[in-house]
Amino acid sequence: MSANREKLTVTFQPDQISVKVPPGTLLVDAAAEGGVFIDVPCGGQGRCGRCLVKIDRGEVSHRESPYLTQQQQAEGWALSCVARVASDLVVSVPPKRERLAVETAASRGALRIRSDWPRYPAVRRLHLEMSPPSLEDNASDMERLRATISRELGIDELTVDLSLLKNLASILREGDWRVTATVDMGGPGSEGHLIDLRSGQISGPLLAVAVDVGTTTVAVCLVDLKSGRLIDRITAFNRQISCGEDVISRIIYSQRGQGLEHLQRLVVETINEILAELGRKHHFGTEEISEVVAAGNTTMTHLFLGLPARHIREEPYVPTANLFPRVTAGELGLAANPRASVYCVPGVAAYVGGDITAGVLSSGLYKTDKLTLFLDVGTNGEIVLGNREWMTTCACSAGPAFEGAGVRCGMRAEKGAIEDVRIHSQTLEPTVQVIGGGKPLGICGSGMISALAEMLITDIIDKGGRFNTRLIEEGARVRLGDHGPEYVVAWASESAAGRDIVLTEVDINNLIRTKGAIYAGIAVMARQVGVDLSEVEQVLIGGAFGQHINVEEAIQVGLLPDLPWDRFQFLGNTSVWGAYNVLLSKQARAKAEEVARGMTYLELIADNTFMDEFTSALFLPHTNVDRFPSVKVLLAK
Amino acid sequence: MSANREKLTVTFQPDQISVKVPPGTLLVDAAAEGGVFIDVPCGGQGRCGRCLVKIDRGEVSHRESPYLTQQQQAEGWALSCVARVASDLVVSVPPKRERLAVETAASRGALRIRSDWPRYPAVRRLHLEMSPPSLEDNASDMERLRATISRELGIDELTVDLSLLKNLASILREGDWRVTATVDMGGPGSEGHLIDLRSGQISGPLLAVAVDVGTTTVAVCLVDLKSGRLIDRITAFNRQISCGEDVISRIIYSQRGQGLEHLQRLVVETINEILAELGRKHHFGTEEISEVVAAGNTTMTHLFLGLPARHIREEPYVPTANLFPRVTAGELGLAANPRASVYCVPGVAAYVGGDITAGVLSSGLYKTDKLTLFLDVGTNGEIVLGNREWMTTCACSAGPAFEGAGVRCGMRAEKGAIEDVRIHSQTLEPTVQVIGGGKPLGICGSGMISALAEMLITDIIDKGGRFNTRLIEEGARVRLGDHGPEYVVAWASESAAGRDIVLTEVDINNLIRTKGAIYAGIAVMARQVGVDLSEVEQVLIGGAFGQHINVEEAIQVGLLPDLPWDRFQFLGNTSVWGAYNVLLSKQARAKAEEVARGMTYLELIADNTFMDEFTSALFLPHTNVDRFPSVKVLLAK
Repeated sequence: MSANREKLTVTFQPDQISVKVPPGTLLVDAAAEGGVFIDVPCGGQGRCGRCLVKIDRGEVSHRESPYLTQQQQAEGWALSCVARVASDLVVSVPPKRERLAVETAASRGALRIRSDWPRYPAVRRLHLEMSPPSLEDNASDMERLRATISRELGIDELTVDLSLLKNLASILREGDWRVTATVDMGGPGSEGHLIDLRSGQISGPLLAVAVDVGTTTVAVCLVDLKSGRLIDRITAFNRQISCGEDVISRIIYSQRGQGLEHLQRLVVETINEILAELGRKHHFGTEEISEVVAAGNTTMTHLFLGLPARHIREEPYVPTANLFPRVTAGELGLAANPRASVYCVPGVAAYVGGDITAGVLSSGLYKTDKLTLFLDVGTNGEIVLGNREWMTTCACSAGPAFEGAGVRCGMRAEKGAIEDVRIHSQTLEPTVQVIGGGKPLGICGSGMISALAEMLITDIIDKGGRFNTRLIEEGARVRLGDHGPEYVVAWASESAAGRDIVLTEVDINNLIRTKGAIYAGIAVMARQVGVDLSEVEQVLIGGAFGQHINVEEAIQVGLLPDLPWDRFQFLGNTSVWGAYNVLLSKQARAKAEEVARGMTYLELIADNTFMDEFTSALFLPHTNVDRFPSVKVLLAK
Repeated sequence: MSANREKLTVTFQPDQISVKVPPGTLLVDAAAEGGVFIDVPCGGQGRCGRCLVKIDRGEVSHRESPYLTQQQQAEGWALSCVARVASDLVVSVPPKRERLAVETAASRGALRIRSDWPRYPAVRRLHLEMSPPSLEDNASDMERLRATISRELGIDELTVDLSLLKNLASILREGDWRVTATVDMGGPGSEGHLIDLRSGQISGPLLAVAVDVGTTTVAVCLVDLKSGRLIDRITAFNRQISCGEDVISRIIYSQRGQGLEHLQRLVVETINEILAELGRKHHFGTEEISEVVAAGNTTMTHLFLGLPARHIREEPYVPTANLFPRVTAGELGLAANPRASVYCVPGVAAYVGGDITAGVLSSGLYKTDKLTLFLDVGTNGEIVLGNREWMTTCACSAGPAFEGAGVRCGMRAEKGAIEDVRIHSQTLEPTVQVIGGGKPLGICGSGMISALAEMLITDIIDKGGRFNTRLIEEGARVRLGDHGPEYVVAWASESAAGRDIVLTEVDINNLIRTKGAIYAGIAVMARQVGVDLSEVEQVLIGGAFGQHINVEEAIQVGLLPDLPWDRFQFLGNTSVWGAYNVLLSKQARAKAEEVARGMTYLELIADNTFMDEFTSALFLPHTNVDRFPSVKVLLAK
């Protein structure tokens, strides 16, 4: 029995935390047992090589890995998601990179707010004055309050939690029967739920938040429900990034020991830190937040609620729920009124979540007569095609290449990222534009698309993404690097990374697979519903990535269909604006549920034409260049 | 500032528990702080003298008390609810009396079960079989389950707690899509709430409990909701007795520091101990209990839920609620399925609680055409007068004399209690009947009424309750005791108490006030609704006390109105049977709410004729003996 096996002691430095574990335990699990959480960006699959730790004393057993050189191994480094405890150990954990760069609304351009819904928030605040009880009128406190609130709001029932009921008598009497009540009417039917009651008459904004729980970033909008005003918006990286960069890695991480609980805690901590920052900035206590509406993809919503995500990853891809139960902030550990309702915008399927439903809502797709293509290219790629009458949706397992993963010098669209590249057709010298100015650190999605298009036009690469080997020259922009041919976008001396910033042939293949998956998804869906892509009247693009790409270049590489440029619109974070609409309007909430239920979901994996479409899309712009007439003309020049 | 004051150390023996408290702290509070709970039957008012502790070392300050003799004080005894810490102390706490005499159904006669409601319990159990998901049909787990359950039960919505949703995926797959679901449909509208889900098909009874939360005793009925069968019933003393014998003492105790939380814990422990006993006896785990219906007076229900009871005691006597919110067993700490709903039968006012609503339900009063008087004489006395068309109700602050409090040799109707007394008209020698046989320990309510009637008939006392001083004789049954004249019901040598069992003139005055309050309540209420008591067609008597009294004697002392004996019926614990009906039938539950809302409540204190009626009733049987014609005839003999 394992309980009888001798346990080994592993001590983690610099925090001097020791745990006793059986031989054979993975280092990452031993660390977690002691509360030491090591970043595993691939979710612990041994596929990224970023969970390196130093073995100061003792032995580990370690299978071979392409991510650990013999020299590193000789120096005592080990991959903590692969190395197993083989003796008593002392292990040094390198300091974590600080990833919680908080970005506030003002720092990246103006906000686009759309809410054309009638303003009818679920949560209402009332100032009440009651006549005190007497021997002639000694109804219970609850009955007195219920009658008053029912009259004010025209509701039949008023429910209340035991936690609040316990304080009812003292609150009513302290305020001499004048109180401020906060009532949530977001439930079914004509009933209200009392979520807060305070002595006296409290004024000021009635605070609530809309949250986009993104795989990479979490955005929180602070709203005054009384006026509908957006008070502020703060965005931060999702702390879960340390446990995997894409949803699949997170799901894999969630299946380890306490992985699910840890991921749930990390995203709640991310949100709570933003809420605390909002509170400091705008001078309120977070317990004043009376409602939370959250939108996220299906995996993110599952992890936010602590629901197991495993079956999202395994065929036939079944989430625990698409329509989520009403929960309270207290149940999730969110820093808000513990009785505040947390409404998760409903999703459609395992890979089309509430963020897409929210996008349909805030983009206006749900009410347009125009044949519309809605795209959200974030860590995944989701597509909706339709109009107010019908909608069909699918998800492409595009992968997070455009967010920097799997691309040697890739990074997210943050300060220091190359977001635009121009290549001189004669000299092949690039001109780059860097987010925030200054020297570049790496290259982000829009920069990749830009570089790809330019390299194609200048014949550095061919339609298949292969380098023109005739251009390869030692010390020049096109050269043969350690991993094959590559293009140097910035020399080490021009960069802030301390090394050359390059795009390799491997990177380019990754990018072509990503754009190919998205285009193939669009094409399959259009054919399934009998629509020719040229009939699409508008293309609405949501997601952080979509904000910075250049339509012309995205068409040139075959990511977007070849339509007149004026049919494209970039809408920014459609997910958080959808959540904001739901916060402000019960009608928007009802519509969100109708949209989620009503969308036809197309499972690409079950579609036998998808693989053909995908293979055809693994060219720049496409095997069949006739689908891209404007690019055909350009390439012919 | 008090934080700067020097703290003193109090050590409680025999458990060696030490606490540090400021000087002046009451001993009972210091004890509670260390988790040492000392019995204070009067709620800590210094009115009963039963919270004696021994000061082994150190000083207490102690105001004078009639309950502590100078000799006791000299020996180091102190009343812990009066004595204040004046130095470091070592205190010995005497061992508690074991009060949890558990009585099972069989031990005290047969059970009377009434349920003529259509059997339609709120909780249902279903065996479900679902087709597994596939790529063509990959609805979420929750949607698959919801669709199946909705079809089976004909409901629109199915809600589920996050705690259960977290396990949904694994339960469905472990059972290979065959599961047993327990659904609570007790909520409003056409919706169900999933409270349990298990892999495979579970059979056996579907367990639920009906609880009477009495001031003195707690009764629990274990029921199989599938068949409606009563499996067992167990009764135990409410552990709260250690904190006060009547509701007023309990409320006073609840206002001390952690008093309310302590009382809540005690009653939950009482119920949990019974549930554990039921589980052992019938071989089930208490987490299998799927629903709880509780009935109690308003104070008991407040303390059960942890709601503050203070304003029930203070004019104008306003409870926090009469209709209680739906709570779960988990919230209350009850040993049942933590998601099981706990429904508290609604009450009418501060002193007419859910036990009376339950009594109206189980007695059949709600459906009879006959003019009916319903009486529940327990620790309090509540009265309902009416029929199916109308009902009016009031409460008499009768006090717990009939349960033994305030009566020198009084005790509850348990083993060893004298329940019947006959007095020889010539010799004045008594013949007594003892519950359970054997030597008597004390005298219970029915014994007191019996003795009172006999002493009146035999001229030992007069109509005013005063002893016939001519009969007083040293060493005889009628004598002058330490506290005035008394009658010796049993000599020390005949008793198991080790002392003479007596009824004193003070006891008799207490009893007369108690019976007078009840009769006055009946009389005032009848007049208020314009009914002559002789018109009452049936008198239904509920409560443990009611089971053992003799109608003839109760009329002789003027407790019950002088009606033909065949109009009286004793129904036993009508509260627990009402709760049982509510458990078995949603219709009964709806009727309970209708009854509670519909009853007209009469506040006796606000009625200016009550004091006159009360004063007139302070005679045996009454100042106006014409109201008791049968007794008038008897006394004339």
